[in-house]
Amino acid sequence: MRLAVIGIGLMGGSLALSLKKKGFVSNVIGVDNNLDHQTEALRLGIVDEIMTLEDAVKLSDIIAIATPVNIAEKLLPLVLDLVDKQIVFDLGSTKEAVAQIASAHAKKGRFVPTHPMWGTEFSGPSAAQSDAFENKATVICNREQVDEDALLTVERLYKTLGMHIVTMNATKHDIHVAYVSHISHITSFALANTVLEKEKESDNIFELASGGFDSTVRLAKSNAATWVPIFMQNKENVLDVLNEHISQLRKFKSCLEKENFEYLSDLIENANGIKRILK
Amino acid sequence: MRLAVIGIGLMGGSLALSLKKKGFVSNVIGVDNNLDHQTEALRLGIVDEIMTLEDAVKLSDIIAIATPVNIAEKLLPLVLDLVDKQIVFDLGSTKEAVAQIASAHAKKGRFVPTHPMWGTEFSGPSAAQSDAFENKATVICNREQVDEDALLTVERLYKTLGMHIVTMNATKHDIHVAYVSHISHITSFALANTVLEKEKESDNIFELASGGFDSTVRLAKSNAATWVPIFMQNKENVLDVLNEHISQLRKFKSCLEKENFEYLSDLIENANGIKRILK
Repeated sequence: MRLAVIGIGLMGGSLALSLKKKGFVSNVIGVDNNLDHQTEALRLGIVDEIMTLEDAVKLSDIIAIATPVNIAEKLLPLVLDLVDKQIVFDLGSTKEAVAQIASAHAKKGRFVPTHPMWGTEFSGPSAAQSDAFENKATVICNREQVDEDALLTVERLYKTLGMHIVTMNATKHDIHVAYVSHISHITSFALANTVLEKEKESDNIFELASGGFDSTVRLAKSNAATWVPIFMQNKENVLDVLNEHISQLRKFKSCLEKENFEYLSDLIENANGIKRILK
Repeated sequence: MRLAVIGIGLMGGSLALSLKKKGFVSNVIGVDNNLDHQTEALRLGIVDEIMTLEDAVKLSDIIAIATPVNIAEKLLPLVLDLVDKQIVFDLGSTKEAVAQIASAHAKKGRFVPTHPMWGTEFSGPSAAQSDAFENKATVICNREQVDEDALLTVERLYKTLGMHIVTMNATKHDIHVAYVSHISHITSFALANTVLEKEKESDNIFELASGGFDSTVRLAKSNAATWVPIFMQNKENVLDVLNEHISQLRKFKSCLEKENFEYLSDLIENANGIKRILK
């Protein structure tokens, strides 16, 4: 099978490497408007050739859209215009916008809205990993509007990567990821800004920061080009969770101010409940 | 050398196992008022025997106080009362309270206030690790009030564990750890409570939560008995950082509400500055 990857960064690059390693695809065509990324992707063996969007769509069997979500939104109708029997899917962190755009297109049956729940805080082709995705969940949205052959192929593709498939409608997906992914990124960005603002002696951060700090701030290295469009597209859900998060932080603040250490203990014990959910 | 560990949990247990493995101590006496922890520590080979506080102090060369910080505060004068030539040090996450208590005691020269910057979100003897501490920093506070032999021995102990030593006064230590450790824990507890509050379908969290969520929420598994006393003792510094953190989160909220995506991008790019500090 011949795969076209539009956007050869962390996600698209990892998809290409992983699918090639598993033998699911024989050949990968890359599409990217960043010349450095083109060169890097060729050099790293992520893609076999670079083509224009039009040629890539015409010469491939399956097309992955792996750009930032605002660009995916713009490219999707253009790609579907070019498609005949090919299968198109995306990997974006928001699903409602693309699902809606697809549903207005005559070729909607060829498009599978998906979200593989894997990523790192790094970006670009050099961040791509050939053993990505394994043992993680992938969400497939709005199956009812997708052609059966397209759905089966994309499911087989994710199963080949070792992922388990979760079915969910796009609206519900966007609500859930606001809780389990988007708010973590905002917290982490804000925490980094807090520490950078308060702690001018950066040697001290470096010396004293241990594993706990590193893990809560790790996501703050994630890039703006990816995350601003995600927050834009999922604005209402993210705001909803962010308001709740600020009000939860205010409870900690109030406990400290009032020296209500019994309630502080209750808050922490309630938070420990996350053990039931995360191993 | 014979070590007494008062409080055989994650920190004290890891210290005992690691020092034994390195051959720094030949024998470990455990002191703990939790009977289950006594049995577990003996069974796991963390301690060789269990004694009362009084016997343990009398029969050991070096004494580590590894209890929650509110208990350390109470035990320190009792331990110093019993001490002759023995060396005492603590491992607590706050340093000003113990340093002040020690400075009022006649035996202040025998006590070294320390804080090894290592930990996990787990607790109890079963959480102890024999390869803990390695390549991390340890803070030694208020060296000027410590006897030279005590200081040298504690420094040698931490160097044996593969730690590098940072010297800092207790007040400054407590300010810095509010930034690089305590606020991360509050954020994580509050984030767990946010998600538990908003996300009633816990299967969905479990299915969709990927590495990013896990790393920001990991610390929320930490126990209240350890953390409430830390937040109490470091209340002013923690409140200061928490206020800044809430105001940083409000900036993200305002960007989303006003759809000011340029400023949102600036906030994220500023947060990326943490890359300069954390590798």
